[in-house]
Amino acid sequence: MSDVSPLTLNRLSLYLRCLQDLASQGVERVSSKELAERYQLSASQIRKDLAQFGEFGIRGVGYEIEHLRDRLRALLGLDRRHGLVILGVGSVGTALARFAGFNQDGYRVVGLVDSDPAKVGRRLGTLRVEPVARLTAVVRETGATIGVLAVPAAAAQSSYDALVAAGIGAVLNFAPTQIRESRGVRIKTVDLRVDLEELGFYLAQAT
Amino acid sequence: MSDVSPLTLNRLSLYLRCLQDLASQGVERVSSKELAERYQLSASQIRKDLAQFGEFGIRGVGYEIEHLRDRLRALLGLDRRHGLVILGVGSVGTALARFAGFNQDGYRVVGLVDSDPAKVGRRLGTLRVEPVARLTAVVRETGATIGVLAVPAAAAQSSYDALVAAGIGAVLNFAPTQIRESRGVRIKTVDLRVDLEELGFYLAQAT
Repeated sequence: MSDVSPLTLNRLSLYLRCLQDLASQGVERVSSKELAERYQLSASQIRKDLAQFGEFGIRGVGYEIEHLRDRLRALLGLDRRHGLVILGVGSVGTALARFAGFNQDGYRVVGLVDSDPAKVGRRLGTLRVEPVARLTAVVRETGATIGVLAVPAAAAQSSYDALVAAGIGAVLNFAPTQIRESRGVRIKTVDLRVDLEELGFYLAQAT
Repeated sequence: MSDVSPLTLNRLSLYLRCLQDLASQGVERVSSKELAERYQLSASQIRKDLAQFGEFGIRGVGYEIEHLRDRLRALLGLDRRHGLVILGVGSVGTALARFAGFNQDGYRVVGLVDSDPAKVGRRLGTLRVEPVARLTAVVRETGATIGVLAVPAAAAQSSYDALVAAGIGAVLNFAPTQIRESRGVRIKTVDLRVDLEELGFYLAQAT
């Protein structure tokens, strides 16, 4: 099942959010058509995406919301805890440490690490910035599973390698560079320059 | 040409970065094979992506780097200026205002707007946080073309609508919600929760 495309997974996250919203309103069942209309999604895409993971819907009745929600939560690993270690505590790392979405459901920022001696020892909320030499110890002590790279592009590959060596299971990368994956430790790169240039293309087309 | 997929556009941004790197090293020509090997890309994908925009490569010779770089820069709107107005100056908005990638090439953060009277008037670098009532004036005075939504999910749709009314051409949205597009003002949503859940899926599969 690990060959599910990232695009499908990202849609599952959106469906889950919609289901949680409906559940909080006391709704018990929803059809793909209702879901699509209410949240501006595609009904056929919903059916296709969910069919990959088993038969959740009953024709003419729709999806049982709590059941589907719990299945999606389990699929997306939300029924377990995930500790995040942020590497690089500059302006991006600091904002991420404070970001509500990183401290919600099973996710928690549990460690902050920086190579700059001037930053080590600083407090951010309940956490203290640790030196890079303590990375493996921090991962072991906190049980962190996800590393977050908020370092400059030039330091990204070596920082990723250090996270892999420290036993991290997956990495979210904010450095604008391609990283060589090793030992199956998956990388997801968030590249805001690339996102801006996507908008730049459409603006250039419009004029 | 506006039907080019976002995934293709995002790859063009990566190719451009590689070409700029090669040009800075004085390299004049590169084949798709060399480009692929050097930057861990796919040679056939490179050829396919670039073929959509005309004939850049010569069989057996490769791509002329400066020519291709300039064409890609024009395609991605990098040969013009883009002013960014950030709506919401909390921790995410503040980090984005300071983000190097938002103040590079033709891109500049030119305006900061917040609805919180306690934040209005604060200085961030050379910019002053303006009240929401001044949004249209800020867009007009600065010539901003891109709006950046760094507001809570509940405020995202009304903030987008306000940006559209103010004459913005495209919007980068960091609020974790789906926004209804209007008047062709394109939205690109960066949803870090969705990215985390993608990693959560792979972690759940691995154990």
